[in-house]
Amino acid sequence: MRVWYMKRIVVKLKDRSYPIIIGRGALSRLAPLLKKISSSSLVVIVTNGPLSRLYRSRITSLLSRHFRLLWIVIPEGEHHKNLKTVESIYKKMVQAEVTRKTVLVALGGGVVGDIAGFAAATYLRGIPFVQIPTSLLAQVDSSVGGKVGVDLPAGKNLVGSFHQPKGVIIDPLFLSTLPRGEYLCGLAEVIKYGILWDEHFFRFIENNIGKILRMKDNVVEKMIARSCEIKAEIVSRDEREAGLRSLLNLGHTLGHALEALSHYRGLKHGEAVAVGMVFSATLSLKRGICKPADLHRMRSLLERIGLPITWPLYSKKAYEKVMAIDKKNVGDKINFVAIRKIGKSFLLPLKVKEIVRYI
Amino acid sequence: MRVWYMKRIVVKLKDRSYPIIIGRGALSRLAPLLKKISSSSLVVIVTNGPLSRLYRSRITSLLSRHFRLLWIVIPEGEHHKNLKTVESIYKKMVQAEVTRKTVLVALGGGVVGDIAGFAAATYLRGIPFVQIPTSLLAQVDSSVGGKVGVDLPAGKNLVGSFHQPKGVIIDPLFLSTLPRGEYLCGLAEVIKYGILWDEHFFRFIENNIGKILRMKDNVVEKMIARSCEIKAEIVSRDEREAGLRSLLNLGHTLGHALEALSHYRGLKHGEAVAVGMVFSATLSLKRGICKPADLHRMRSLLERIGLPITWPLYSKKAYEKVMAIDKKNVGDKINFVAIRKIGKSFLLPLKVKEIVRYI
Repeated sequence: MRVWYMKRIVVKLKDRSYPIIIGRGALSRLAPLLKKISSSSLVVIVTNGPLSRLYRSRITSLLSRHFRLLWIVIPEGEHHKNLKTVESIYKKMVQAEVTRKTVLVALGGGVVGDIAGFAAATYLRGIPFVQIPTSLLAQVDSSVGGKVGVDLPAGKNLVGSFHQPKGVIIDPLFLSTLPRGEYLCGLAEVIKYGILWDEHFFRFIENNIGKILRMKDNVVEKMIARSCEIKAEIVSRDEREAGLRSLLNLGHTLGHALEALSHYRGLKHGEAVAVGMVFSATLSLKRGICKPADLHRMRSLLERIGLPITWPLYSKKAYEKVMAIDKKNVGDKINFVAIRKIGKSFLLPLKVKEIVRYI
Repeated sequence: MRVWYMKRIVVKLKDRSYPIIIGRGALSRLAPLLKKISSSSLVVIVTNGPLSRLYRSRITSLLSRHFRLLWIVIPEGEHHKNLKTVESIYKKMVQAEVTRKTVLVALGGGVVGDIAGFAAATYLRGIPFVQIPTSLLAQVDSSVGGKVGVDLPAGKNLVGSFHQPKGVIIDPLFLSTLPRGEYLCGLAEVIKYGILWDEHFFRFIENNIGKILRMKDNVVEKMIARSCEIKAEIVSRDEREAGLRSLLNLGHTLGHALEALSHYRGLKHGEAVAVGMVFSATLSLKRGICKPADLHRMRSLLERIGLPITWPLYSKKAYEKVMAIDKKNVGDKINFVAIRKIGKSFLLPLKVKEIVRYI
């Protein structure tokens, strides 16, 4: 096998620190990683139907010499991200006599990672788990940082835990089977890191946007690696979102509102975040915090990708109502992520009414 | 109001340290404790029907000047300790717009504490909670240490989290309405602390057993306080049960097996633990680890209380089967808690067959 460049980033959380292994061929590191984590011969792999069809034989051939595998295939889609699906995972783990030493592998996008991670967080009060994110969004965001959970009928991610994985394996191989639209949505979160943390990285994306859109290997790997580095740094410094980690909500105040107002059938998450970031820059500009050039650069880049940059005309009352129940509100204020300039953001506590004024 | 002696023990877990407040009248400390924990005006109280009827008006009068109260009454009994009950709690919290700042109070025995604690551990990825244990078992054991969770059809406590409370309030007042049999069962866990950790405390129980059985206030308070002190020390040193905390499983290997074999309709938990401790001493004696006098003292004390000290005649095969699926097994061995002498125990890894030999 040809040896590829492989990047290793560590999320530093003392005795719960873990590596993120990034690069084409990273999947081949799964067996050694699992051996390092546990001496158990049983490994649980949670995934959905399409991914199981695409990758089951490949992963089986990588692991079957070393481990017995229990495949748990859960139904696809956010509307199955609920306690019922988690219970079905528990049931199969009980039947297979999964113990506290057994490692669970979550193979999939954000939905699979959140559900499987929550099952791992709560089964026997917590078993070790490994994330193998298969969507760009999961690779640069949800697989790192330990947030796991499911939805309730009343809202998204209302139930969950902080349960850090023992390792994350990111192989760009999976992007080859990802629908184009989902790849572009993932880019919204990539750009988010540039805006909130690193102007240099933002410029890297601008300069390489053609290659990124053509999914050129080494550029994509660099892009994923830098995104994970930023997320790892933020999570290491503020695991439980006491402050700094809230910066990752850039674009999410309006984004979540738009998703809720369309009952999650309108904009995709990445699209909603793209719009939300433009809104954040607009609000920041109007309050004299950032400059027109910053807003312009953001809009241009997002447009190049084909991500939306304007928000639909819901009534202000409707916006106020959905923002008021955001679970991240503190008292009657929202910790809005404002933009000083590209590469620098900060938390600006604002009342819902003050935010909606700028819509 | 007459001022009673009030004992304060701290469970030391760095930024997650919390006080246990013990004594008649401790309940009056609830409002100040809640104010210290959060500035939120809403407080959620989870309890069951009988306790709500007995204590709702009293607690309302203590809190209503300072807080809005959301009472969530869950069905009574271990067979309701499941995800369905947890979901019903989530639902009511969503309706009442419970936020991350809202404190949940668990008012009840071990079952209520486990269920409500798990809801608190997972709602919005964790909200603060306070334990007000009302049974002796919960006061000396389950309310301290952060183990929360629910049962699955396949077994007890198979789903859960470690979620430390922000405080525990132990008021012997509640023991006055506790059924006699439950009080005696709680004494089994009290005696367990003496056997596994503190010969001096064991002697205190021996010397005061008459007063303890008559529930004499100051002796009962001392007994609870010392039990909590021992538990707090062990939990502070080994929160996640990597080693030391396993000593608290003294008597539980056979105990759990007996509960499972009778489908939780035979011996009560405290009774099963009493039998299990006698078995542990018997095994230790036969292996030349402890002396006949230790076994004799244990049996005498448990008999004084009226707790069972002999185990039913299930087949060895049946014992082997239920022990093999204990969730605390490590590889093919069980970390059996053996007794060196009263006040000193240690972990002795044994195969199931080796344990069953001594039954």
